[in-house]
Amino acid sequence: MLNPATTEFIDTLRDRLPEAAFREAGPEHLQEPRGRYTGTGLLLAPGSTEEVATILRACHEARVGVVPHGGGTGLVGGQVMQEGATPVILSLARMDRIRDVYPSENVLVAEGGAILANIQSAAREAGRMFPLSLASEGSARIGGLLATNAGGLNVLRYGNARAQCLGLEVVTAQGEVWHGLTRLYKDNTGYDLRDLMIGAEGTLGIITAAALRMAPVPAASGTALFQVASPRAALDLLALARDRVGDNVTAFELIHRQGPEFLAETGLEPRVPLDPLPDWMVLVELGLPEGLSPEDSLTAIFEAAVEAGLSEDGVIASSESQAAALWAVRETIPEANRRIGSISSHDISVPLSSVPDFIAEGGPALRALGDVRINCFGHLGDGNLHYNVFPPKGRSREDYEHIRAKVKELVHDLAHGFGGSVSAEHGIGRLKVGDLERYGDPAKLSMMRAIKAALDPHGILNPGAVLRG
Amino acid sequence: MLNPATTEFIDTLRDRLPEAAFREAGPEHLQEPRGRYTGTGLLLAPGSTEEVATILRACHEARVGVVPHGGGTGLVGGQVMQEGATPVILSLARMDRIRDVYPSENVLVAEGGAILANIQSAAREAGRMFPLSLASEGSARIGGLLATNAGGLNVLRYGNARAQCLGLEVVTAQGEVWHGLTRLYKDNTGYDLRDLMIGAEGTLGIITAAALRMAPVPAASGTALFQVASPRAALDLLALARDRVGDNVTAFELIHRQGPEFLAETGLEPRVPLDPLPDWMVLVELGLPEGLSPEDSLTAIFEAAVEAGLSEDGVIASSESQAAALWAVRETIPEANRRIGSISSHDISVPLSSVPDFIAEGGPALRALGDVRINCFGHLGDGNLHYNVFPPKGRSREDYEHIRAKVKELVHDLAHGFGGSVSAEHGIGRLKVGDLERYGDPAKLSMMRAIKAALDPHGILNPGAVLRG
Repeated sequence: MLNPATTEFIDTLRDRLPEAAFREAGPEHLQEPRGRYTGTGLLLAPGSTEEVATILRACHEARVGVVPHGGGTGLVGGQVMQEGATPVILSLARMDRIRDVYPSENVLVAEGGAILANIQSAAREAGRMFPLSLASEGSARIGGLLATNAGGLNVLRYGNARAQCLGLEVVTAQGEVWHGLTRLYKDNTGYDLRDLMIGAEGTLGIITAAALRMAPVPAASGTALFQVASPRAALDLLALARDRVGDNVTAFELIHRQGPEFLAETGLEPRVPLDPLPDWMVLVELGLPEGLSPEDSLTAIFEAAVEAGLSEDGVIASSESQAAALWAVRETIPEANRRIGSISSHDISVPLSSVPDFIAEGGPALRALGDVRINCFGHLGDGNLHYNVFPPKGRSREDYEHIRAKVKELVHDLAHGFGGSVSAEHGIGRLKVGDLERYGDPAKLSMMRAIKAALDPHGILNPGAVLRG
Repeated sequence: MLNPATTEFIDTLRDRLPEAAFREAGPEHLQEPRGRYTGTGLLLAPGSTEEVATILRACHEARVGVVPHGGGTGLVGGQVMQEGATPVILSLARMDRIRDVYPSENVLVAEGGAILANIQSAAREAGRMFPLSLASEGSARIGGLLATNAGGLNVLRYGNARAQCLGLEVVTAQGEVWHGLTRLYKDNTGYDLRDLMIGAEGTLGIITAAALRMAPVPAASGTALFQVASPRAALDLLALARDRVGDNVTAFELIHRQGPEFLAETGLEPRVPLDPLPDWMVLVELGLPEGLSPEDSLTAIFEAAVEAGLSEDGVIASSESQAAALWAVRETIPEANRRIGSISSHDISVPLSSVPDFIAEGGPALRALGDVRINCFGHLGDGNLHYNVFPPKGRSREDYEHIRAKVKELVHDLAHGFGGSVSAEHGIGRLKVGDLERYGDPAKLSMMRAIKAALDPHGILNPGAVLRG
């Protein structure tokens, strides 16, 4: 059992931490973006790894819970704790430096609180790129992005957050520092604790710094939006593109017409430059080496797709602003979704070849539950769909409260039945603890609980996240 | 404390396992390639995951050690146990099927005993490639390759074994089966047990099957051998190549003239087609998308390298047989090394920008210990050098026995001093347990021991490998 963090407990730290570490928790620490949870806790904002270690030693000793807080952008409640003994909220916001950049190694080292956009800028200044890219990049912090193994738009080509990380500095539950901040591309000395910490959502340790891979900037990039006859045709088009340019396909996003229709309905600007608006579209981005023209490659892919009966219409960006306009359609859909208000949102993945069947079965099954609209979009190349269910025009999510649980269960059961995941990129947090218990492999869950007990015997790290406390 | 595997213990399994599972251990199970260890044990060769589980349940209950055995090609004694209570040797050789191939998903599923070359063939037949490639691919088995997170020739572009794996089926120490054989590219539901098992060298679980990523075959490949002025020039040439073709550089191998000289000295065939023989060379391979000529790209890279003063000579393969001849030089060097007989071999990595300093400091320091020859070659693009120390011509490794420990310590201390690894790709096995204790981070070692105790409380899995029993 954990003890609550009290002001008396916080005061015991005053001779061990500088004044700057003591702050008032604000709404940004106690709420999460979707407004489903309101947390509680007393805030500490350490300025160094040693200060994090000091706090964790004290919390471990006093058996006080610690909720790590990065940018607060997570979508599954991993960053707020609303039940149980009041925890310390451990903000990494003051540890936001890029410590070092090693351009000749394609490596940079950032503190856990460094904001993703700043890491991207540092890589750009070094003539490289940091490929992790997602909607919240202006506020999400790398410690949280790694703790949740964030995905985003470039996973197809560059992998998720995990794939960008070479080494970690981590403070353990006992307040020891693991100096694992290696810049090595290969190191087979012992268990892969790096990948264990990545995706553990702060329940096994606190990521205070990371050595990150930068990637070479492709010599040229190109973007296109192609109508496709069906989700199956979209997959065939992906295979066709890869036959031609290998894995230089950097993004392959599926868009159903519901997304652009939501944009229009909610008064949001970006428009699809195809008339008539297709039922299904894919947004394709190529990043090519020197000597190839992205426009030529995209044209060749389009012509082959037309010949194969996969596509009948499309637009290839001929400037950066045209490319940005195409991307704006994709990137504004989540905001349109928020304005409409979903009955239930899902972040599922299924094996690539099952995507069309999942979509074909999901629609009729959901519509049997009620008069709903489905906005299915996302990272098709990764088999990862944001499959969100909405009320019809003129009605609100509140009208559908009674079927919400059923909708979620139907979608999750369907994905699970295809061998899929009920959290492809958002993680478990507190929202999906029950889903993990329901769908998770029993041997996996046993091992997870054994590891949690071994590394955090008092259960102080992010209590109730991922695993029930 | 573990109990020895006795014939009585084995006999208790006869009613639970088919006759085919009972075999005599042969030399291939009791020796390792370098002849440094001779193991002991009673052999079991299960034919299915359920049989593996049966064996592990019995061993867990009886506290009998289990040494997993794949292809037996490991170089650090992870596959043989020569001390302690006689273990069961668990051979995966009968579980060698490719279970399924999913070309449209770029995924195949193989049993733990599947031989790497057969996996490569299955991928080729599906019009894809399986990029893991190393000298022992004709006998190494995927379970062992994953358990040791094997590296090899294509890590620069495709990553090591870890990066090829989507999902695992694993039998735990308690004989439970974790059905984690997912074909998903994205799945953020809980701790990353896959990567924990990968590289754990059979000490945390037995890998009975794996879902593996296949990669698109590059539309065209090209190979060249360039003289370079120095290791620093080699790194600059790599940067230059990447500026032009991004990460379509699929291999970048450093070769010191000592390697080709050893080939000549030991009567091995391949010759370097450059005259005079340069002090330093790099073997470069590009895998390019449609529309680019590898020869043109390599020529452009060479011309730029000459202009930058990095290279003065080189040869670009104009046929597959010429490319194979260049690769033969690199691939035959290990055999020449074996024929010469090393005083001490090392599989180190350092941060990329420290490679030249490591090489500059290592030579004089070693020659201060004695009259030695150094063959430094390997995966420069990964910062991974096979840095092997040999006697001068006419003398043998036995003459240098007295300095062997000092040589190893010097090389390992030097690599560690640069923030490097003393086992970049071979793992810890039993050979480097002391190195891990000497160089490993204390917090990392504590966590490793806690995880080992949590997942394998009786310590039956590969006793004495990675961590002291």
